[in-house]
Amino acid sequence: MHALLTDRYELAMLGAYLREGIAERRGVFELSVRRLPPNRRFLLVAGLDRVVRYLRDLRFTDTEVDYLRSQPSLGDVMTDAMEGYLREFRFRGDLDAIPEGSLAFEGEPILRVGASLAEAQLLETYLLGVINTETRVASKAARVVLAADGRPVFEFGARRIDPLTAPHAGRAAYIAGCAGTSCEQAGLSFGVPVSGTIAHSYVLAHVDDGEEAAFHRFAESFPKGTTLLIDTFDARRGALRAARAGSAVRAVRIDSGDLLALGHDVRRILDAAGRPDIQIIASDDLDEQRIRALLADGAPYDAFGVGTAITLTPDAPSLGAIYKLVEIDDRRDVRVPVGKRSPGKPSSAGAKQVYRRLDSDGTLVEDTVRLSDEALDPNPDPEAFGLLVPVMRSGKLVRDLPSPSEAVREARERATRSMGSLPPGLRSLEEGVSPPSPVVISQALSALSVRGD
Amino acid sequence: MHALLTDRYELAMLGAYLREGIAERRGVFELSVRRLPPNRRFLLVAGLDRVVRYLRDLRFTDTEVDYLRSQPSLGDVMTDAMEGYLREFRFRGDLDAIPEGSLAFEGEPILRVGASLAEAQLLETYLLGVINTETRVASKAARVVLAADGRPVFEFGARRIDPLTAPHAGRAAYIAGCAGTSCEQAGLSFGVPVSGTIAHSYVLAHVDDGEEAAFHRFAESFPKGTTLLIDTFDARRGALRAARAGSAVRAVRIDSGDLLALGHDVRRILDAAGRPDIQIIASDDLDEQRIRALLADGAPYDAFGVGTAITLTPDAPSLGAIYKLVEIDDRRDVRVPVGKRSPGKPSSAGAKQVYRRLDSDGTLVEDTVRLSDEALDPNPDPEAFGLLVPVMRSGKLVRDLPSPSEAVREARERATRSMGSLPPGLRSLEEGVSPPSPVVISQALSALSVRGD
Repeated sequence: MHALLTDRYELAMLGAYLREGIAERRGVFELSVRRLPPNRRFLLVAGLDRVVRYLRDLRFTDTEVDYLRSQPSLGDVMTDAMEGYLREFRFRGDLDAIPEGSLAFEGEPILRVGASLAEAQLLETYLLGVINTETRVASKAARVVLAADGRPVFEFGARRIDPLTAPHAGRAAYIAGCAGTSCEQAGLSFGVPVSGTIAHSYVLAHVDDGEEAAFHRFAESFPKGTTLLIDTFDARRGALRAARAGSAVRAVRIDSGDLLALGHDVRRILDAAGRPDIQIIASDDLDEQRIRALLADGAPYDAFGVGTAITLTPDAPSLGAIYKLVEIDDRRDVRVPVGKRSPGKPSSAGAKQVYRRLDSDGTLVEDTVRLSDEALDPNPDPEAFGLLVPVMRSGKLVRDLPSPSEAVREARERATRSMGSLPPGLRSLEEGVSPPSPVVISQALSALSVRGD
Repeated sequence: MHALLTDRYELAMLGAYLREGIAERRGVFELSVRRLPPNRRFLLVAGLDRVVRYLRDLRFTDTEVDYLRSQPSLGDVMTDAMEGYLREFRFRGDLDAIPEGSLAFEGEPILRVGASLAEAQLLETYLLGVINTETRVASKAARVVLAADGRPVFEFGARRIDPLTAPHAGRAAYIAGCAGTSCEQAGLSFGVPVSGTIAHSYVLAHVDDGEEAAFHRFAESFPKGTTLLIDTFDARRGALRAARAGSAVRAVRIDSGDLLALGHDVRRILDAAGRPDIQIIASDDLDEQRIRALLADGAPYDAFGVGTAITLTPDAPSLGAIYKLVEIDDRRDVRVPVGKRSPGKPSSAGAKQVYRRLDSDGTLVEDTVRLSDEALDPNPDPEAFGLLVPVMRSGKLVRDLPSPSEAVREARERATRSMGSLPPGLRSLEEGVSPPSPVVISQALSALSVRGD
């Protein structure tokens, strides 16, 4: 049911490759980000698990094939041979990838697909869509988590994005270090912790007896602990009412107004009411810079709820990953590196591997992008390790897939280590300064000559 | 399978409402956009069809209910009563909505849900997610189509967004006037015309004999007509090769470089080669302003391919629609208007209807937002018509749902009329000037007093 989540031109090219008899030629495609988006000093990779399940399960249903046959604009290539090819389609290629939760930088292949030209081409749109989305969200969420400086960040931006993608966004945010998501399906699908408080509508619905009664009722419904939203009418008054709503109240949330002043006032009110134990959560269109500023000013927040900034990443809405053919077998089965030369958008030829070097403290020193062939030599830098690992070989998984929640757990642990390996310059959220890139291109890769046009 | 595409707090509140015995109280929620996003002078509504199908089909599966029961943080409200409620859940409320393809402006309810508090609350996240996404895409696509000034615009931004949402984005773009989408599933699901050309990889894959051979082969595969991408190596050389690739070549696409200069050069090359019939399509991160500038400078493009700008709308990544309780029955079953007073984010109390007035040429003159009760009086402005129409009553569809493709066709036709009704100020793509808003608030609505806290 996912086979047509692809662009028409992938199918048109597939048809042409079949007709020309070159569909089975082996090619290598790489997915990478040419330049980091604005305000990003690293990418935190997410999305691989979904890509692998897609590759494992990709089939064309009868409905899909029949639909394609009905399309006049595909008519000339929708031959019986093409139809047969689609009905028998299985991904039989190789996949190497940088694992979820790893750091990546510009020009580094995040995924590398080695497969028949036809197969590898078909995957382009889906692979880009998944990695562009999940890595974009994870990379932003990681920054927000950095800004919160140890305080929990809850992602609750589901309402800003298509509901179908919300569980995946919640998953990516959790991998990146968020404490949880608001999206219930992310809990069911991926085992991500789900949390939530109340909406203003809950308070307004208690029209007979007002906010104070609403708070008491909600606390009664959640005697083991809950969070109250206190700014429906007046956050200071709400704070006092929350303080009196019983011991089930563990936190209050402020969602509007001058968060610095309100934070201090609410803290004082809670303390004065004998509830220093009640935590304060801030929300209201927060991002890493607003959180940083609040904390730098001493705002007494214990946690943050962040929506739009994480799921839509307005400061860098597009990750801009690309998927490019980098090697293709010629008619004598000689593997040839290829790349386009479009002005400003050249592609980097040759199948690549990235070697990362950490210092003795585990801090990232340098990434070297090499031709993957160079790895056949004795590792040119014995202290570096290759980032891309084999995931599929000839369509088969190299290791059994962990359960969805286990995959998330692994990725999140890896992300914790990754974030710990960032040197100060790359970790900094300071705006307007650009640290030097940690990426170096190997001599062999730089010297690679692409067959002329 | 969509019931948990909602935020945890909706379920927490639902549980609390049940426990308190107010779940069946009738409330009215409205979905609206408080302020138009930057660079937007109108919204083109899209997403209603998906909302209606969701409301019609919404059920909780056993898996979903069992999962919810397993969540310790919901434990106190996940009673047998709650479980029973969820297992029996059907949407039994009313839905009024501004039809897809209509114009809407700030403060106008796009959807109005009248239902039990429990039901209406539960829907919040999904309804917001769908309308925020599809209306955002349609509103941007409409601007791009305006900029193209009659030339076809093809949406091909699937690769920039989650694959699961791509068919919906393609649908929204088509409703807004795009000629088609690249997303194949949008064709199957919604009958949207799908189109595509070739990627650079197709040219690169012809490593044995190069671009010229690649063009000939592709044209042979699509003898009834095709488009060639000519900038893999050099767009001018590519143009000449395309001109010689036979009569099947109907268009060329340029995806990089100085699009103004290249457009002119490629036009000259094609004409000189005796192929004035070959059209030129521009792509490369285009948006309405770049298209406007190209056309203002006389660039000879016949059509445009637009990706990121339409699907991710980077100039206004978030639509920011909200879903607010505006009326609730009190304990004596008296309907009470309610609204929050959060600083900077007040909600507008009272169930509303929007009356639109067009002049004799069919141009939009003014929208008046009134209390929906005002409609019970003789229409206060006989020349105006109400925008929100009844869609569901007591959970039943007011009219049979058209097929997905028929719904798209209707919405697209309505969008054409809507765009034709825009006065010059609202239609203009000029940056930096803000035309006066066409929205007026009725006296009765302005004077509405909200019950104090």
